[in-house]
Amino acid sequence: MENVTLSEIKRTPELLKQVESVPFKLEKGKRYLFVGCGSSYNLGYIAAEMLNKNGYEADVVTGGKIVALGDFPEADVAFFISRTGESTETVLAAKALKKRGIYTISIVCAKDAELSKTCEENIELPFADEESVVMTGSFSTILYMILRGIKRYSIDGIEGFLGKSFEYVDRLELKKFSHFVFLGFDELYGLAKESALKVQEMALQWVEFHEPLDYRHGPKATLTEKTLVVMYSKDTAYEVELAKELKQMGAGVVYIGKEGDIEIPYQDGFETPVRILPVQYLAYKKAVSLGLNPDKPKNLTKSVKL
Amino acid sequence: MENVTLSEIKRTPELLKQVESVPFKLEKGKRYLFVGCGSSYNLGYIAAEMLNKNGYEADVVTGGKIVALGDFPEADVAFFISRTGESTETVLAAKALKKRGIYTISIVCAKDAELSKTCEENIELPFADEESVVMTGSFSTILYMILRGIKRYSIDGIEGFLGKSFEYVDRLELKKFSHFVFLGFDELYGLAKESALKVQEMALQWVEFHEPLDYRHGPKATLTEKTLVVMYSKDTAYEVELAKELKQMGAGVVYIGKEGDIEIPYQDGFETPVRILPVQYLAYKKAVSLGLNPDKPKNLTKSVKL
Repeated sequence: MENVTLSEIKRTPELLKQVESVPFKLEKGKRYLFVGCGSSYNLGYIAAEMLNKNGYEADVVTGGKIVALGDFPEADVAFFISRTGESTETVLAAKALKKRGIYTISIVCAKDAELSKTCEENIELPFADEESVVMTGSFSTILYMILRGIKRYSIDGIEGFLGKSFEYVDRLELKKFSHFVFLGFDELYGLAKESALKVQEMALQWVEFHEPLDYRHGPKATLTEKTLVVMYSKDTAYEVELAKELKQMGAGVVYIGKEGDIEIPYQDGFETPVRILPVQYLAYKKAVSLGLNPDKPKNLTKSVKL
Repeated sequence: MENVTLSEIKRTPELLKQVESVPFKLEKGKRYLFVGCGSSYNLGYIAAEMLNKNGYEADVVTGGKIVALGDFPEADVAFFISRTGESTETVLAAKALKKRGIYTISIVCAKDAELSKTCEENIELPFADEESVVMTGSFSTILYMILRGIKRYSIDGIEGFLGKSFEYVDRLELKKFSHFVFLGFDELYGLAKESALKVQEMALQWVEFHEPLDYRHGPKATLTEKTLVVMYSKDTAYEVELAKELKQMGAGVVYIGKEGDIEIPYQDGFETPVRILPVQYLAYKKAVSLGLNPDKPKNLTKSVKL
């Protein structure tokens, strides 16, 4: 039987198609806040970056911070993201913000979740529910839905990109690498953070995430031939130069960008929901090559309940 | 001859005393921006968190992002932080912001640096100049100077804290650990990031930094008995509980907080310049135990010049 996580990565193009019929719109002038934990926080981070870049006002905070410190940015509308809708911290955060008069909206991939009962408005995407512990397809689904709130758009050729990504990753000598570094600016920094988390959760590897040029300012001390650097590039000359330098230093480098090892044009960040696919597959492949079951990561559960 | 890095960590109390005669004041109503790379960025991140928490308006950005993307937050006054004052990205960033009419101020631990020639106003702290590649004492020095711009204050008992920290770290079975995780909220998140960088630069170890509660949402997959978690705590019940849980899972845990393994009361973040001392020493000790020279980290130079 095929691994559940792999099936979920593979059905992403189909999930994204389903998102296109979900009505969702954001308004300028409102202060939005995204709340989540783990991958859901990373998703909110990318969403907030994209909103701010497009003339909206948005911020992001972890459910854990709201719960532990009682502290959060000012907002008119808060989105609470949780695939299962059962994360204790996110539910408690929703209760706290509702009490303070902030309009609360849940975004979940489930029906009748605890979080949905807590919020004033609910967006349920049960078609993107996942059996696996690690968030993959649901991550792209929710992110794409939010970005379509900025503008109605489609990403062309997702199936082709998925296929080419898989082929590229299949050709990588993954056994050489035990140290994975992800680099990106802005929304791609959020994606780098999420990518590191995927490889950590599924394959239990040593991972890092940084802004591209800041990688030279200390972190590159630990670069060796066992290091695989994945560059989520905006195709600036500085990033191209950095990729070249790191390759010369002996690291493996996967450049994901225009004319890259895995080619994807930079579309002002709107391509982000698809950009992560090669790395989700890479995490899966590395896990399997080590005899790990990516469906059941060590020490983890599907929802963190306090 | 004693290691240079160790001498520099040890003289931090003396450096902080010298800072107290440096006149520096921040004003409410102005929009401040901190610019730096690597440790200087982490320093700016902590400073920005502290300013915002105290009713000032502040943001932080890497020199690399300004240079590569030409993108930066709006500001009235920008501080450019570079110990040597020679980091190419920070110098180029200063030039770019000056051109856009932002008032530029350099903060350096040197005399007549390239960065100082570029900025309209210069704060030189040559007494905190360092021979070593890794920033230690100068980090606390600059941070303390900036925080004293919020309010004139002193940190009591630094020498005692330094001594007790060293004793604690000396008793740690450091050879057991090859995976170092740093946790903290807000300004302590910035400190966790900086701490991870120290252990990476000096001791070439596998490092991570997270918000405390988010550590359960994925990263803890890789926790083993080789993991040492350093919790920079604000002493919330949630953090205390987390420390207990991680210890039960088999990790080593160093709790730095009130009644902690290393005791330091939370003083609304104003204690941050001193809080990092135990970890700087830990990084140094781990490096030496591996036969590495913490004065000369692998792959690194004192200033990154493009």
